[in-house]
Amino acid sequence: MSNIIEIVEVGPRDGFQSIGPLIPTKRKLELVDMLYDAGIRRMEATAFVSTSAVPQLADAAALLEHIAGKPDLDAQVLVPSLRHAERAIAAGATHLAFVLSVSEKHNKGNVRRSPAESVHEFGELAKLVPAGARLRLNLATAFDCPFDGAVPAAATLALLEPLVAIAPEAEFCLCDTTGRVTPDRVASLFDAARDANPTAQRWAFHGHDTYGQGVSNAVAAWNAGINVIDSSFAGLGGCPFAPGATGNVATEDLVWTFTEMGVSSGIDLPRLIAAAREAAELPGASFGGRVRDALRARTRIAA
Amino acid sequence: MSNIIEIVEVGPRDGFQSIGPLIPTKRKLELVDMLYDAGIRRMEATAFVSTSAVPQLADAAALLEHIAGKPDLDAQVLVPSLRHAERAIAAGATHLAFVLSVSEKHNKGNVRRSPAESVHEFGELAKLVPAGARLRLNLATAFDCPFDGAVPAAATLALLEPLVAIAPEAEFCLCDTTGRVTPDRVASLFDAARDANPTAQRWAFHGHDTYGQGVSNAVAAWNAGINVIDSSFAGLGGCPFAPGATGNVATEDLVWTFTEMGVSSGIDLPRLIAAAREAAELPGASFGGRVRDALRARTRIAA
Repeated sequence: MSNIIEIVEVGPRDGFQSIGPLIPTKRKLELVDMLYDAGIRRMEATAFVSTSAVPQLADAAALLEHIAGKPDLDAQVLVPSLRHAERAIAAGATHLAFVLSVSEKHNKGNVRRSPAESVHEFGELAKLVPAGARLRLNLATAFDCPFDGAVPAAATLALLEPLVAIAPEAEFCLCDTTGRVTPDRVASLFDAARDANPTAQRWAFHGHDTYGQGVSNAVAAWNAGINVIDSSFAGLGGCPFAPGATGNVATEDLVWTFTEMGVSSGIDLPRLIAAAREAAELPGASFGGRVRDALRARTRIAA
Repeated sequence: MSNIIEIVEVGPRDGFQSIGPLIPTKRKLELVDMLYDAGIRRMEATAFVSTSAVPQLADAAALLEHIAGKPDLDAQVLVPSLRHAERAIAAGATHLAFVLSVSEKHNKGNVRRSPAESVHEFGELAKLVPAGARLRLNLATAFDCPFDGAVPAAATLALLEPLVAIAPEAEFCLCDTTGRVTPDRVASLFDAARDANPTAQRWAFHGHDTYGQGVSNAVAAWNAGINVIDSSFAGLGGCPFAPGATGNVATEDLVWTFTEMGVSSGIDLPRLIAAAREAAELPGASFGGRVRDALRARTRIAA
């Protein structure tokens, strides 16, 4: 097993999107700079979505332009449809993350399409990706749906098959949208997905800490051989279509955990925590994670 | 692997002890009753300690008397020395939990003895245990010390050897006093401890959630074959001699997790959560856990 984990910082998209009051673009760029300076080299920087549905991300092009100047930063942008993918490519995106849900209800709520329609759209999108650009597939409700509860592994595997056939070079991210999956199922679904799709070489995990499973599931994914894991600084985040599902796992909790396990993320924890503390103070932010407070307590005692 | 986990609810001792303002004994008994009614059948009910050092637990005998009347409740009481063990036995205790630390500094801070002196005292205590009573050994700082950092596995194993020789019938609980151990080390230390001590049949794990490892480490212990795990309702707890180490893992988070994994604890989650919500409102309580809030969010949405 490699001793290097790739953390995908999703705070600037998944995190900011969950915050009601508009964050000034300048403030977003300052926080992105802090993340970069802490050593974050992969980021879901923004999303190209309907600005009337998600006004918080109306400044997607400005985010993308700012980030383009940062050496060695792999900035993915979320696109829920072909139309928005075209906007992202026109704005210079070099890494597109398409999202669809295994759950019919969740996909309809999220993008107003059936999963099968979204699979077709992923096929069209794959043809559009410019040479040298990267493609990711975020498979939402891969384990559990806020409307229907547990999603059978068979349903996720059935949807993965045509997606992998379309673009085996893509990265496939299995997302625990609700935070309700437990580590045993994380491990078993990754094992099954990789066995069934040997042509897919790149896998990732996206988890939430809503039910306290954030660190546990990330470690389970890592132990199952997954070395790309999403998280959000200060645990910002949630999903507007997954009621109650607040709280991506906190990046600082994962960096702390993996560092203790001897696994390197290349991220400087004190700098990351400085960024996370500022993020947790954004007006309207709901936040999570334990390591910020634990280290603050230790610092106080040392002082 | 068995599909039954035994949760040891340590809130009435470890949790209450961490709260500054004195909790009226009557209030403690009400909360203990709620825990019992939720299906808790094993509890660290109190400690027999110096009442000047820990005034919160000066009502140990009253707690013990109240609990004695509850059918099928296994109530252990913590005793840090021979003298206090004698008090506990005189008060009718049928399950004694002795505590000592692997770390010299931590043991001196906690009980003013060297670990070797505490081992000797455990030997004396084992002779005192009345027929039919049970004995547990809580091995604090088994992984990490608040003063010295990581505790080498060799040090913990070296201390375990004479302890197991004294009372192989006892239950040996490896405690992560600081919350800083990660699941890989939980698993490997249990593997090594059991390999080295085949005569010891009963093992347990005690973890904290201070750094977000609470659920993850409990699952790691379970996967390593440990089916007795300590936790505290509402995540109450900490250690007065472990600066910054607030937050036992929350019982409701473990019950939720293991239930989802198909492992039964015999505990009714809604009733447990009702007790935990009251505990979190005790004046001066610091609390943790995620499941209380996650389920409250879902209930609100359903309403």
